Amino acid sequence: MKQYMIKELQSLVNNEIANRSSALTTMKPAMLYEPVSYSLKMGGKRLRPILLLMSYNMFSDNINQVLPAAVSVEVFHNFTLLHDDIMDKSEIRRNAPAVFVKFGENNAILSGDAMAFLSYRILNECLSDRISDVINLFTSTAIEVCEGQQYDMDFEDCLDISESDYLEMIRLKTAVLLGYCLKSGAMLGNADAEICDRLFLLGINLGLAFQLQDDLLDTYGSQELLGKKIGNDIAGNKKTYLLVKAFEKAGEDIKSELSGWLSSGREKEEEKIKAVIDIYNKLSVKSITENKIQHYFNNVFSTLEDLPLDKNLTVQLKRLISGMQERKY
Amino acid sequence: MKQYMIKELQSLVNNEIANRSSALTTMKPAMLYEPVSYSLKMGGKRLRPILLLMSYNMFSDNINQVLPAAVSVEVFHNFTLLHDDIMDKSEIRRNAPAVFVKFGENNAILSGDAMAFLSYRILNECLSDRISDVINLFTSTAIEVCEGQQYDMDFEDCLDISESDYLEMIRLKTAVLLGYCLKSGAMLGNADAEICDRLFLLGINLGLAFQLQDDLLDTYGSQELLGKKIGNDIAGNKKTYLLVKAFEKAGEDIKSELSGWLSSGREKEEEKIKAVIDIYNKLSVKSITENKIQHYFNNVFSTLEDLPLDKNLTVQLKRLISGMQERKY
Repeated sequence: MKQYMIKELQSLVNNEIANRSSALTTMKPAMLYEPVSYSLKMGGKRLRPILLLMSYNMFSDNINQVLPAAVSVEVFHNFTLLHDDIMDKSEIRRNAPAVFVKFGENNAILSGDAMAFLSYRILNECLSDRISDVINLFTSTAIEVCEGQQYDMDFEDCLDISESDYLEMIRLKTAVLLGYCLKSGAMLGNADAEICDRLFLLGINLGLAFQLQDDLLDTYGSQELLGKKIGNDIAGNKKTYLLVKAFEKAGEDIKSELSGWLSSGREKEEEKIKAVIDIYNKLSVKSITENKIQHYFNNVFSTLEDLPLDKNLTVQLKRLISGMQERKY
Repeated sequence: MKQYMIKELQSLVNNEIANRSSALTTMKPAMLYEPVSYSLKMGGKRLRPILLLMSYNMFSDNINQVLPAAVSVEVFHNFTLLHDDIMDKSEIRRNAPAVFVKFGENNAILSGDAMAFLSYRILNECLSDRISDVINLFTSTAIEVCEGQQYDMDFEDCLDISESDYLEMIRLKTAVLLGYCLKSGAMLGNADAEICDRLFLLGINLGLAFQLQDDLLDTYGSQELLGKKIGNDIAGNKKTYLLVKAFEKAGEDIKSELSGWLSSGREKEEEKIKAVIDIYNKLSVKSITENKIQHYFNNVFSTLEDLPLDKNLTVQLKRLISGMQERKY
């Protein structure tokens, strides 16, 4: 059985998405389908489709058969970005104007809706006995992603978020979709139910690690590598693992200093970012977060090692995860 | 085989929706599920679930088995209302504040998204061999409904809409969902493919008649019966069948008069409504629209008569449709 390399899968996914995006530009009404095509052409890491295909490839090498499932999850992921960007007023996405900025809010709402349904239509193109089960898993995952986004919005007006509340939020908002990718890939490859469940768990841990890395890099990453300014989350009062831990570790003095910065306006942005990073440094928030990320990656690797599969079959996935662990942007 | 009366189906649907709405109020995060419950409790005619059950009841009387499908289509319909109301800035829905007014725009977007996925989850509760086919039909219908809403928005900035463009818009926005109800009900009742398709066609004609009635009643209905002001569409420059036909029939003078009113602001609203109705009257737009509605109802009844089914089985659906034909609000 052929084991596809990461780069091979990436180019299969990118080609498939490019072809479908081009087809979309000829579909009517244009104002519905153009934003869909625009958002898919923006690029991105294609992490979710690649995870799905890699998981499938541990059980089958008939990759073309499940390319629609891989595209489907990317369309779904982009649907969430379209709507989240409206809700969060995030005007820039992947160094380009967000869909609602380029096409207007109404079109971003409606094209997002269309993408949600398109992700079902594309998923259903997979010829598989397991497709009904996969579609049901997709539905429950999508509902959980909505729940996660709601918790994230709830947290905006909230200072005392516990670590476990925060982790539950990112589990729903980010991790379950990675779990879905790995589990659905295995299901489509006709893997045993137990292996499917273990891969789901692996995806959850990977998703938690991934989101905590995002949190960490936004404050401690390299401006150059990220291609964006450091401290965005701090400037925007975004609740992150770093902030949650800082509040947990801080004494009353630092707590009130932090709260002060969180209620300050945009005018003292540079000063605020510097001050909050100083607090993080004092409280060792960086190493606490790094340790937590390491903890989840350890879970990921041990789950991977424990899979009752030939090591040849897991080597690509292991390589991908190692790459994710090292990521600097 | 028991033939359910309209009222019986209505109360089954209302009970089922009431139970599910109550369950939703205990689900977390509350800000995600409260708007869903609010929107379902607002009421409405429940036309779509009743059509689905009636169609099913021509082939089976095990109504409880398909109640989830009936609820699912109502959840989907309400999802479209949540998002359409944001896009159209319609602040009042069924004499109450629209969801985006009551809960904010972000929550209306996100709860709407959740409803889209909930409609899949609920639909999938139906135990039926045909459920996969029904889900696929649901997906393609949902995409068409998005297309219809996009055409409706495109028409906002457009004066020269042809009759056929307008009819295609309402076919997508309104009629295909009624077609879906009748076809999916029949599919779940294990009807032959040909009967399913004929019922779909019946639903399309019914949906076109239904939307044209809406257009007509907004201008020529009774304020009292409608529970809302006459002339809303005219005041809001909404493209309707009446307006499309008026532009088609008008000479150059009346055309420019109409265009003038369409570009006037809200300050002369009463005068505008009166003037546009005068133009409609001059051009016999009312009877033209009535004839078109009659045409579609004729199609509906002849499709119904031609169904290769015992007349006992179609009597309730015929009664429902006759009631719709007489509706004054």
